[in-house]
Formats: sequence, C-alpha cells, structure tokens
Amino acid sequence: MNPIQHDSAEILCIGTEILLGNIVNTNSAEISRALAEIGVNLYHHTVVGDNPERLKEALEIAFSRNNIVITTGGLGPTYDDLTKETIADYFGLPLVLYEPSARSIRCFFEKWKRQMTENNLKQAMMPEGCVVLENHNGTAPGCIIEQEGKVAVMLPGPPREMGPMFTQQVIPYLQKRSGQVFRSHCVYFFGIGESALESELRDTIEGMENPTIAPYAKDGEVMLRVTARAHTAEEAEELMRPAVAMLQERFPQYIYGVDVDNLQTALVRALEQRGLKVATAESCTGGYLSKRITEVAGSSAVFDCGVTSYANEIKEKLLGVRRETLERYGAVSEQTAREMADGVRRLAGADIGLSTTGVAGPGHSEAKPVGLVYVGVSSEWHSEVLELQLSRGYQNERDLIRYLAASYALSAALGAAKGYPNEK
Amino acid sequence: MNPIQHDSAEILCIGTEILLGNIVNTNSAEISRALAEIGVNLYHHTVVGDNPERLKEALEIAFSRNNIVITTGGLGPTYDDLTKETIADYFGLPLVLYEPSARSIRCFFEKWKRQMTENNLKQAMMPEGCVVLENHNGTAPGCIIEQEGKVAVMLPGPPREMGPMFTQQVIPYLQKRSGQVFRSHCVYFFGIGESALESELRDTIEGMENPTIAPYAKDGEVMLRVTARAHTAEEAEELMRPAVAMLQERFPQYIYGVDVDNLQTALVRALEQRGLKVATAESCTGGYLSKRITEVAGSSAVFDCGVTSYANEIKEKLLGVRRETLERYGAVSEQTAREMADGVRRLAGADIGLSTTGVAGPGHSEAKPVGLVYVGVSSEWHSEVLELQLSRGYQNERDLIRYLAASYALSAALGAAKGYPNEK
Repeated sequence: MNPIQHDSAEILCIGTEILLGNIVNTNSAEISRALAEIGVNLYHHTVVGDNPERLKEALEIAFSRNNIVITTGGLGPTYDDLTKETIADYFGLPLVLYEPSARSIRCFFEKWKRQMTENNLKQAMMPEGCVVLENHNGTAPGCIIEQEGKVAVMLPGPPREMGPMFTQQVIPYLQKRSGQVFRSHCVYFFGIGESALESELRDTIEGMENPTIAPYAKDGEVMLRVTARAHTAEEAEELMRPAVAMLQERFPQYIYGVDVDNLQTALVRALEQRGLKVATAESCTGGYLSKRITEVAGSSAVFDCGVTSYANEIKEKLLGVRRETLERYGAVSEQTAREMADGVRRLAGADIGLSTTGVAGPGHSEAKPVGLVYVGVSSEWHSEVLELQLSRGYQNERDLIRYLAASYALSAALGAAKGYPNEK
Repeated sequence: MNPIQHDSAEILCIGTEILLGNIVNTNSAEISRALAEIGVNLYHHTVVGDNPERLKEALEIAFSRNNIVITTGGLGPTYDDLTKETIADYFGLPLVLYEPSARSIRCFFEKWKRQMTENNLKQAMMPEGCVVLENHNGTAPGCIIEQEGKVAVMLPGPPREMGPMFTQQVIPYLQKRSGQVFRSHCVYFFGIGESALESELRDTIEGMENPTIAPYAKDGEVMLRVTARAHTAEEAEELMRPAVAMLQERFPQYIYGVDVDNLQTALVRALEQRGLKVATAESCTGGYLSKRITEVAGSSAVFDCGVTSYANEIKEKLLGVRRETLERYGAVSEQTAREMADGVRRLAGADIGLSTTGVAGPGHSEAKPVGLVYVGVSSEWHSEVLELQLSRGYQNERDLIRYLAASYALSAALGAAKGYPNEK
C-alpha cells in the first residue's frame, strides 16, 4: 500500500454536455475540495466528451502523471456511456454481471413503475474484481479498480448521485489507503468580511501545521475549516478542540454556528431549542427569506406564516403599517421596516417578527439608491432596525442584494432568539 | 486561414484555487457555450495549478491534439502568474512592454488611489507581435498569438473580466477566422420530459444540418437550441425561422417561450402585456414561488402580495380556507388548494390566485406520500387544481420537490394568463 505522500490524483470528467457548456462542472470542485481536506495531492482536472478514443487517450495521459484517477460520468445505460468498458479494457479486465446491482436496478423500475429495457442492465456489468460503490440516489453503481499501485475510481455524472457516493464510500477508501484519519469542523461567520477576518488571523493561521485553518468566502459569509490528521478520529478531535475554542473566544459576535451548514439552519435550531416562532414580512426579498427558512426540514415547528407585501396597500391592509408612515417616510424606511416587523408578529401570533424593505434594483425607487435595505426585528424582549447598504456596484446584483438582505434578517433573528430571556 | 472544419479548441485553465476546489470552474462552461454557438469544435478541458512545468506540459499536450488553445488565469501581477511567460516561451517569442496597457494600468491605480508597484507593470509585458485584448473590468490585458496555424488565446481568470473580453473580442476574432456567422434561438418547454421530446423529434433532429437543434434538460424543463450558420446574421435568421415555427406548431401546449430565460420571466411578461396581477398562497413551497416571481426585475407591476401559510390557522385566518375543509380533507388536498387560491385572489384583489400545498419531505404527513403536491389556480375565467407526484425517490429531494411545485404553479399561471379573454 502506498504511503499517502506518493499518491497524486487526477479528476477526469466524461460528458459531451460539459464540453458544450450545457452544465457547469461542479463535480470537479466538490471532489477537489474533499481531496484537499484529506491531504491527497491533485494536479490536474481533465474533461473529455463521450468518445472512447479520446477517453482512452486521456486515461493514458492521466496515469502517466498520477496514480489515482477519479472519473465522473459515462456510467449510464445508453450506447454512448462507455467509461467502464474503456477503463476495464485499459486494465485488461472483462465486465461481469454484478447480481446485487442487477437486483436493485430491477427493484427501482418496479417501484417507480417504469419500463426497464435490457440496456438498463448494462449498468450492472462491472469490471471483474472491482470494489462496487452502491448508488443510493440513482441506478448506476460506481466502482474502484486497484492494480499495481494504480487506482481508478468511477463515479456517476449527476451531482446528486456522485456527491454522496464520493463522500460516503470513496473518501473512507482513500483515507484507509493513507493510514491516516482526517477530521474537520466548519466554523461559520456572518457580518465580518473575509479579508478582515484573514488579517486578524493571518499570524495564527500561518504558524499552524496540525490542525490547519483554511478560510472560504461565499455570498457575504466566511467559513473557516479546521482540519486535523491523526491515527484515530478521537486524536483528531483532541487536536482541533483548542483551535475551535480559540475562534469562539475571539469572535463570539460573528460566529453563528459550528458544523451547521447555513444561517437558516442555525436559526431554525435556535428557535426549536427555545420553543419560539418567527414570522416574516418581506418587501424587497419577495419571499426569499421565508423560502430559506422553510427549506430547513422541520421548520414547520418554528414558522407558521410569512407575508410578501410587495404593494403598499398590502403593507397597510395585512400588516397594519400606517398610511401616514408610508406617505411620510416611504416604503423603504426604518419606520416602515419597524411597523412591518411588529405587524407580522401580531398577525401570526409569533414571538419574533422579521421584515425587509429596500431597493434591490435595477434602478432606484423613491429617490433611494440601489442596495439600501432596512431589516426589522420585533419581539417583546428585543427590537431593532438595521440600515444596510448592500450594493457592490456590480452589473447584475438584484439577486445578490436580495440574498444578502435575507441573510442579515436571518442573522438578526438568530441574535434575537439567542437573547431570549428563558421564560416565555 | 484555416476553414472552420479544421479548427478544434482546448480550454486550459490555470489556477491552484480551482484544484483546491475553492472556486467552481465557470469560465470553462461560459467559453464552451460560446464556442458551441459559433460552431468551433471543443474536445478537451484541462486545469493545472500555478506551476510552470505542469503548464508547459499541458500546453504541449493541448497543441498536440488541438490547434486553438484558450487559457484563463495566470495573467496577474504576482510571481506565480506565469501564463504569458510560459506560452511566449513555447512560441519562442520575447516579452515586450506594451505602452497602451502600461498607461491604462497607471491610470487605474491613480483613479482608485491605490499604490502601484513595479510588479503591476508585469501585466503590460506582452509576447512580441501578439494581438492585445483590452481588459475593461480589471488591469490584466489578455492576448492572442497566432503562429503556423496554432492559436493561443490568453484570458484573465476572474469571470467578471474574462467574460466580456471573450464575448466582445475573442468571439469576433474566431468568427472572422471562420468567415461565418452563427446565430441561435432558445425554445423553452415545460411539462414534457427530455426523453419524450427527443423521441418525438429524433428523426427530425438527426436529419438536420443547418440549422441544427440540440436539447438541454434541467430541473424538469427542456430547452431546445436552434442554431444556424450563414454569411450574414439575416441569412442565419432566415434559416432558423421554419425550424422555430415547426416546433411552435407541434408543441404549442409545452412551449412557454422563445429566448425568454425562464418560466417566471415568461409569466411576468405575459401578465404585463395583459395588465393582469397574480397573488400567491404557499404551503409546501414556503415562499419559493413568490421569490421566483419577484426575482424578475419589473415584477412589482404584476405582483402585490404573497402569503406563506405554513400553519393551518394561517390558512383559515388569512386566506379564508374553511376549517371544515382542513378537517375533512386535510391541508394537502385538492379542496384546500382550491380554497387557498380563491382566498389569496380575494385577499390581494388580484386577477389570478395561485396556491401550492403538498408534502416536500423528508417523511410523509397526514399519511400522504412525499412528493404529493396540489397546485391551485383561481381566476374569473379559468380555475383548476393539478394533482402532482413530484418525488423521484432521491435521498435529498426536498428542495427539488419545492422547486418543481413552484414551476408547475408558474406554468399553470402562464396558461391562465394566456387564456385571459381580452376584456377585463
């Protein structure tokens, strides 16, 4: 078994639709991220179409410079799906019917009452002696061939099938190969920029070897991934503990969660724990805020009602915003945000009312600039209105402004939930 | 000058951050799409890190199999940006200072009041005799080297800089090379699967040479791209007209628009044209429907109000769904969907009321299966309730079910708008 420092990997994606620009190659990014986390060196991504000659050539090039090749795509039932055939041929292995996969393919078609053709069984033909990777999200199984230090990992193309198969079956396989265990925790920040956080932490991060801390920024949030390697999971956890504690101590106001995925999940969990309910009144976000809350499974325990009050009449009629307020300060104002949050809290009988009103663009309104957004929070123990300027001067930033406005509202609601004085 | 049929291209992206999975390689997708539209064959994508040896090796492989190589990344001012140096070396060309670029780099730093270092001028050193590509969105210019039938196009890495440079300067360059013009129209379908549409059209599509028709499927929709090549844009339009008309004649019930981007845009445009307004009452989609409507700029002219009625009490209190209906049939029922759509239409004073209620999962509710969704449409001239089964048996399909439910509601509203009997 090779020690990990000699392993290097190449990702080889197979699919004409990628070369046509029909789909963005997110598989390569997902696999790359996971390999980086477990310390496998990755020097090349390659994409070829559904063409056996070019696939064969790419495979030869890949194995001439790396010992692990991870492919995605070309495992389906149609005549142009040729990954297994081509790679088995490269290793000089015949394809044999793998009964468990054949059975589950037959089951799938029975369950969904679709017609199965003989072609579908092509998916159960596997290179002799390979490790079969089960597909819990589709019909095409994946597989691993290991021969003379070369490892070929074949994964299906659809990200929904590829992702879980890679994370649940391939990563443990590669970790076992390396004889080391990698564990990581993700610490999520909101309200502080990546460069500000990095300059605060640069000296700390640069001096670290095990665990390491790596920053990732996306859509106004920053995530720090703390990763440790060790011989056992417990040792790795032990190594990470002081680093996570250090972050929580230094940035209590910006950290919204550890290993929590996103703001909306952090909010739903915080409300659940305290038995609280939130309600939303949206203008510029137009439903984006309630969409994000309700995308969390189990959100129905903490969310009964949201109102998208795009028109002023609806703000008045449903939420009880006073006409005088709208006329005097405008729909995009601190006062309107406050009355919207109060109004929806009353309307829904919720503990926390949340509101958004602003100019998402394109073009200003009420003589107010694009990106100006007010976020209101209303509860018996804590109420506030945030004034935000969310424009970054990009050409097409309507969606970004709406997303960020919803993020600020989620973060503000989380703050209110955490400040809840325990008795209701 | 080579005739286009002999040209084939490879995209070579340079950047360690892509190999680390820090960023998704959207540049390759954008370039691929544009090349497909102008008929340039593309057989390979490659990614390497900021490493001159591996870049040189990848460049040699690329030119051994394709005559056009388009690179992104590695044009910046830092020591590890080595694309121009490596490629100029491959062609045996020295780098020389390009005064206009040097001037505009100096200007940029003055305008934004940042400090310029000598390193920044490295960006103005260009391979001798190249075509310089101006960068209107950053400081690093791109360039094209053409030598003995080989073409190397170097573009900056940031998509915001790469995209406009490629579309505005490289595409015309490649089109001029080919002496042809390519034009395309996108025809959007909803309610028919890709395989059903393909099997209906296979004979037609396979027999076509100019224009061609290519199908693209995504999230329950299908788009057919009709592409023609000719000597002028007018000729290309002329060639496409009968193909687009044929599709519209054969699939009037499934086509929601031509060159229209998405369902929500088609709906907002159709409502605008007829002076109609829509209102939404959402249960399982939880705001996703109103979020999609309001993401269309200008939607405030056709949308005043949406209600996310997650709890039964809100369905009763705000939308006027009868308690009897909820108790007898349940929240997930045809009857509730109808009363929700009627209720929100009345509440908002809208022309069309739309509703969704269903089981998005995970886990069934009211003993109803995951994926069962009712979509209601209410208007004075047309009302209906659709019963849908949107589960595909995936592990994590909550988001997909919600997305598809919103798509069916948008499509149903579009049908109602189109059926509007002209006088209000």
